[in-house]
Amino acid sequence: MTLNIGVIGTGMIGQTHIRCITQALSGAAIAAVSDANRDLAKEVANDLPDAEVFDAGQELIESDHVDAVIVTSWGSTHEEFVLASIAAGKPVFCEKPLATEAAACRRIIDAEVAHGSRLVQVGFMRRYDVAYRVLKTVVDSGEIGAPLIYYSGHRNPEVPGSYTREMAIVDTAVHDFDMARWLLGEELVGIRVLPAKRNSRGGELLDPLLMILESESGVLVNVETSVNIAYGYDIRGEVVGETGTASLADRNLVDIRSAGARSGRIPADWRERFVGAFDTELQEWIDAIASGVAPTGPNSWDGYAATVVCDAGVESLAAGDRVAIALGTKPALYDSH
Amino acid sequence: MTLNIGVIGTGMIGQTHIRCITQALSGAAIAAVSDANRDLAKEVANDLPDAEVFDAGQELIESDHVDAVIVTSWGSTHEEFVLASIAAGKPVFCEKPLATEAAACRRIIDAEVAHGSRLVQVGFMRRYDVAYRVLKTVVDSGEIGAPLIYYSGHRNPEVPGSYTREMAIVDTAVHDFDMARWLLGEELVGIRVLPAKRNSRGGELLDPLLMILESESGVLVNVETSVNIAYGYDIRGEVVGETGTASLADRNLVDIRSAGARSGRIPADWRERFVGAFDTELQEWIDAIASGVAPTGPNSWDGYAATVVCDAGVESLAAGDRVAIALGTKPALYDSH
Amino acid sequence: MTLNIGVIGTGMIGQTHIRCITQALSGAAIAAVSDANRDLAKEVANDLPDAEVFDAGQELIESDHVDAVIVTSWGSTHEEFVLASIAAGKPVFCEKPLATEAAACRRIIDAEVAHGSRLVQVGFMRRYDVAYRVLKTVVDSGEIGAPLIYYSGHRNPEVPGSYTREMAIVDTAVHDFDMARWLLGEELVGIRVLPAKRNSRGGELLDPLLMILESESGVLVNVETSVNIAYGYDIRGEVVGETGTASLADRNLVDIRSAGARSGRIPADWRERFVGAFDTELQEWIDAIASGVAPTGPNSWDGYAATVVCDAGVESLAAGDRVAIALGTKPALYDSH
Amino acid sequence: MTLNIGVIGTGMIGQTHIRCITQALSGAAIAAVSDANRDLAKEVANDLPDAEVFDAGQELIESDHVDAVIVTSWGSTHEEFVLASIAAGKPVFCEKPLATEAAACRRIIDAEVAHGSRLVQVGFMRRYDVAYRVLKTVVDSGEIGAPLIYYSGHRNPEVPGSYTREMAIVDTAVHDFDMARWLLGEELVGIRVLPAKRNSRGGELLDPLLMILESESGVLVNVETSVNIAYGYDIRGEVVGETGTASLADRNLVDIRSAGARSGRIPADWRERFVGAFDTELQEWIDAIASGVAPTGPNSWDGYAATVVCDAGVESLAAGDRVAIALGTKPALYDSH
Repeated sequence: MTLNIGVIGTGMIGQTHIRCITQALSGAAIAAVSDANRDLAKEVANDLPDAEVFDAGQELIESDHVDAVIVTSWGSTHEEFVLASIAAGKPVFCEKPLATEAAACRRIIDAEVAHGSRLVQVGFMRRYDVAYRVLKTVVDSGEIGAPLIYYSGHRNPEVPGSYTREMAIVDTAVHDFDMARWLLGEELVGIRVLPAKRNSRGGELLDPLLMILESESGVLVNVETSVNIAYGYDIRGEVVGETGTASLADRNLVDIRSAGARSGRIPADWRERFVGAFDTELQEWIDAIASGVAPTGPNSWDGYAATVVCDAGVESLAAGDRVAIALGTKPALYDSH
Repeated sequence: MTLNIGVIGTGMIGQTHIRCITQALSGAAIAAVSDANRDLAKEVANDLPDAEVFDAGQELIESDHVDAVIVTSWGSTHEEFVLASIAAGKPVFCEKPLATEAAACRRIIDAEVAHGSRLVQVGFMRRYDVAYRVLKTVVDSGEIGAPLIYYSGHRNPEVPGSYTREMAIVDTAVHDFDMARWLLGEELVGIRVLPAKRNSRGGELLDPLLMILESESGVLVNVETSVNIAYGYDIRGEVVGETGTASLADRNLVDIRSAGARSGRIPADWRERFVGAFDTELQEWIDAIASGVAPTGPNSWDGYAATVVCDAGVESLAAGDRVAIALGTKPALYDSH
Repeated sequence: MTLNIGVIGTGMIGQTHIRCITQALSGAAIAAVSDANRDLAKEVANDLPDAEVFDAGQELIESDHVDAVIVTSWGSTHEEFVLASIAAGKPVFCEKPLATEAAACRRIIDAEVAHGSRLVQVGFMRRYDVAYRVLKTVVDSGEIGAPLIYYSGHRNPEVPGSYTREMAIVDTAVHDFDMARWLLGEELVGIRVLPAKRNSRGGELLDPLLMILESESGVLVNVETSVNIAYGYDIRGEVVGETGTASLADRNLVDIRSAGARSGRIPADWRERFVGAFDTELQEWIDAIASGVAPTGPNSWDGYAATVVCDAGVESLAAGDRVAIALGTKPALYDSH
Repeated sequence: MTLNIGVIGTGMIGQTHIRCITQALSGAAIAAVSDANRDLAKEVANDLPDAEVFDAGQELIESDHVDAVIVTSWGSTHEEFVLASIAAGKPVFCEKPLATEAAACRRIIDAEVAHGSRLVQVGFMRRYDVAYRVLKTVVDSGEIGAPLIYYSGHRNPEVPGSYTREMAIVDTAVHDFDMARWLLGEELVGIRVLPAKRNSRGGELLDPLLMILESESGVLVNVETSVNIAYGYDIRGEVVGETGTASLADRNLVDIRSAGARSGRIPADWRERFVGAFDTELQEWIDAIASGVAPTGPNSWDGYAATVVCDAGVESLAAGDRVAIALGTKPALYDSH
C-alpha cells in the first residue's frame, strides 16, 4: 500500500524530498504538489506522472488523493499549512522552523492538543543521522556516567551574502539546540551568546559565536557556530560525562598518505554530511504513518522549544547578557518519547 | 513504472533482498518467488500480497509477470537459472558464485555472447560500498601514483563448524580477489597460498591464510583471511602506490573515552559492515534496468574470473606452491566497463 | 663544564627534578640541597655524593658552589627565594606559582628590572611539550588563518580530598591560561567562570568548570577543567582559525583491536603525559645558562600574568559574573620573546 | 662517576652519538676518538676538550682512559674492533651490522663465549622506540592471543643513487627482521623475497619488495620495503593474534583541518622518527655498564641472526624461491633475555 504525499513548496528542499521519495525510498508516491510560484510547481510535476498540481496549499491538503502532507514552503507560511493539515486530520511533515514565532508554534500545539493525537513532525534531521544515534545510545547507556557538558560545533565553509547576524542562531545553531535537548532529554533554561574575534572572511557578520546554555539539571551546552571557516562542513559533538566522554568520530572513508601527511576528507557541505539522515527521516516517517504507529520524530513541542531558545539567543546577542528561557507547561500529548 | 522481480531461492539471503526491495528501495516489487522448499516459498510469499509462488524456477523465469530475476538459490543451481534467464532474454542478478565451476561460467558467457548483450550481474556487493568506491576514485585519480601493492585483509570473528578448509578461499577471499581485479583494472595471473601459524580457535582449519597474487602488470596482491579472530568483522584495504598510499579508514561513528582508553566500535559481522552496499547494489541494478541503460555492475566475466582464481587458490593450497591463473580470451562483450 | 645547581625544597617535585638532572640530562650536577625539613634534605643528599646540605635556602643561594637555583619549596616561600636569587645575581628556576599573590609577583618583577636582565624562569612545562610546540608552529605559520577561538580541555582522573574549590582555577587551569597567552601571543583581558552540573564523584567540589576568557584582540578562550573524570589524564587543545583548525592529536602509541573495539591508551596522569616536557624544560634551561644566552622560557611577567588571571577567575567564580583582568604596564625587559 | 667512552669512526653516525652523549645524556663523556680519516677525527675532537685522538682503533680500545667503546666505522671493519674490545674485556656498542658476513659474526660469538660474559651490544635501536616497546608489552601480555602473522612495513621517501638491489634487504629490512625476532621471541626459519611491480621513481631498483618469512612456530612475517615512496618515512607494524591485533599507531602530534581535509604529519626521515630511540638506546647502555648490570640489549647472537637472515634474503631474491635459514646452535651465553 502506497502512501500518497502532497508537497507544498517545490523549491530546492521540496524538490530534494520529492526526488528522495520517488527515487530512493519505499512505500510512498507524490500525489500532489503546490507552490506560490505555479509555474515552478508545474515544472516539477512534469517528472511526476501521478502528481496533481494545486493552486493553493489549502486545496492540496484537503484533496482526497493526499494521505499526508510535506510542508517545504517559506517559513512564514508554515503555520498556515500545518494548522490546515491538523484541521484535515492528516499527518504533516514540516521543515524547520515549525513557525517563525513562538506564539505561532503555540497555536499549532493548541490545535494538535485539541485534535487529541500527534500529527506533526518537524524536520530536525540530525536525529536520524547514524552517528548521532550511536552517540545518544552511548549517553543513554550510562557508559560515560551522567552528562555534565555537551560541546556542539557547527562549522560551515561559507554562507551567502544574504546571511544575517541572527541567522547563526535561528538557522544554524537551532540544530545544535535541538540536539542538546534530544541527547540530554531535558529542556534548556538559559543562554548566553558570546561573539568571538570576528572572522575577516565574513565581513560585518559576528562570526564565530560561542553560546553557553544550561539545561534544567545544570548541564552546560557549549555551542560554536563558525560559518565562514573555509575548510569544510564539520559537525562536532562531545558529551562529557562523570567518568568518560563520547564524541562524534571523524567520518573520512579513506586515509590517504601523500606528500608528508596522512589525511582524510571532510564533507564539503550539509548535503554530503547528512544525505543519509534525510533518507532515514522520511523513510521512518512514511513507515510510521503506513503502520499506524504514533510517530516518534521531533514533534510540535520540539519545534516550539527550538523557536523559544532561538528567540532567547537573539535577545542575548543584542543584550550582551544571559537570557532565561521560559517554555511554560508542556501538554501531556508530548510526554512520551 | 515498477520493475517486477522474481526471486528464486527464498533462504536467508533471498529474504534479505526481498525485504530490502519492499521496505527500503524504490521502483521495484516482488512479483514471484520460488524455492526448492515450496513451503518456505509460500511462507515468504505470505507477506507479499502481489507475489505468485512457482514450483519451478524455470516457470518463474518464463512468467509474463516477471521482468527481472534474482537468483539466490544454492550455488550448484545458479548455472541452470542464469542460463534460463538469458534464454528468456531477462536481466538476472545472481549471487556469487556465478557458478561453482569455471566450465559452467564459460557456458553462461557463451550463452550471453550468443544473446548479444549483457543480462547477467553477479553479487559482488563490495563494489557498491561507499568506502571502496572512494578508494577506487583515489587510485584512478593518480593521486598516489601507479599501484604497486594491494593489501586486502578479511577478518571474521568466527565461522560455523561446517566451514571447510577451501572456504577461506572460495567463500571468503573471493571478495578480495574481485576487489583486486576491480581496483587495479587488471586480471590476476598467479597465486600462492601460505598458511600461517594455526589459530587454535579454529580447530583443524588452516587459518589464517596469506595469499600472494600477481596482476598482469606485476602488482602484488596480499590477501589475509582470518576467519576466527574473535574481535570483530574487520575489512582492511591499502593500495601502495609509487608516491603514496590509500587505505580504507576505520568506520567507528563515535569515539568513547572511558577507563583509560579511547575506543571505537568495529562491526560485528558482514551485515553491519555492508548493509549499505547491498542497498546500493540492488537500487542501481533496478534503476539501470528501468532506464534501459546497460548495467555496469560485475558481469559474467567477473564471475568467471573469480571462479578461476579460486580454483587456482585451492590448487596452490594443496600443492604448497605458486599456481598460474589462465583465463583465456575475454569476449568483446565484456570490454567496456 | 658542569652547571652546579642548588635545589631548595626536596619534596616530590624537587626530587623529580634532581633525578632528572642526575640520571637523564647533560651538563649539570646537584651541588646543594635545602629543605624546611632538614632530615628530608639529608636523606635526599645521601644519593648525591657531591651535594652539600644547607639549613637555609638563603645560604644555599649565596654559596660559591652554586651557579643556579631551583625553587621547588611551598608556593608561599617562592617570593623570598626568588628575590634572594636575583639579589645574588643567579639564574633561578621557580616552579609555579611564581608567587601566590600578584603583589609579590610585582616585587619580583621590580627586583629583576632593577637588576637589568632576566634571571627568573617559571615552571610552565607545557611550553616544552613537543605537541604544544608543533601546535604553536602551525598557529604562527598562518596555515589556519588568524586564531579566533581556543579550546583548552584539562581532565584529571581524580584529585585528593585536600583539593579545594579554587584549585581548579589556581592549580589546574593556570596551565591552560599560560598556554592561551603563549599560543596567542596576547594578554587575557576578561574571564567568566561557569560551573557545570556537578560531578557526583567530586563531593562538594564545583566540577567540572567552564571558563570563557577573552584576549586583547577578542579571541575567546574556552577552558574546561574536569578533575574527577575517572577515565584518564586527557589534555585537549584546539585553535579555531579563520580558515581551519589545529588540535592536539591523540597520543596512543599502539592501536589495539580486541573485543569489538579499536582502542588506544590515554595517559594515567600528568607524569606520563608530560615527562618529556619536564626533561626538555630543564635541559634547555641548563643549556641556555651554560651558553650565556638569554633564557627564552616563561619569565617573571608570565608568572605574574598567570597569577592575576587566576585571581580574576577566583573572583568570577565567587561573583558569578565576568571579571576584567588588568595587568598594568609590562616592563620593556619582558618585551622580546 | 662518569663512563669514559671511546668512539671509533667519526662519520655522520659517530658524530650523532657523540653529540647525543655530550649534549643530551647523563653519566658519560667522550674520552677518545679515532677515524681512518685522522683529520676528521681531529676536527670532531676540537669540540671535545677531554677527548684524545688515536691513530688506530686498536690503541683507543687499549687506552686506560677508555672504559667502553662505540664502533661506528665502516661495516667491514666492525669485526676487528669488536674482537679487540672483547680481548680488552671492555663493553662495546657496535652499530649494525655486527659484521658483514655470518662467519665473522660467528668468530665474535666464539670470542665472547670464550670470554665468558656478554660485552657486545648491536645497534638495533628500534627495540628502544617507545611505540615498539608498548607493542611488545601488548603482545607479551596475551591480550591479543598468540601471534600468528606480523606485518612490518618499512617505507623510505627515497634512497641515494648508490643504493643497490641487495640493500633493501641488508640495510633496510634488516631492522624488520630484528623486530620480528624480538617481538615474537623466536628465530626465523625461512624467507621468500617477492619483487612487486617496479616503482618508476627507483630506476632499475627492484622496489618495492615483499618478503614472507616464517618463524619456528609457524608465524608468518610479512615485510614490505618501499624505498622510493616519496610521501614520507613511514614505519608500520601490526601483530595479528588469535583474538585481536596490535599495531603501531600514527604518530602525528597535531591534527590540522584545512582545505577540505583533516591531516597529520608523517616523519620526513629516520632521524625524525627514531631520535628518541637513539637517546634511550645509549642512555640505557651507559646506565647498564655504570651499574654493572648485564646488558639486555641486542647481543652478538642477534647481530649474527640478522646477518644470516639477510644472507638468505639476498639468496632468495636471486633464486626467486624460498630459502631456508639455518642458524645452528645458540650458545647458552645468549639464553636469557
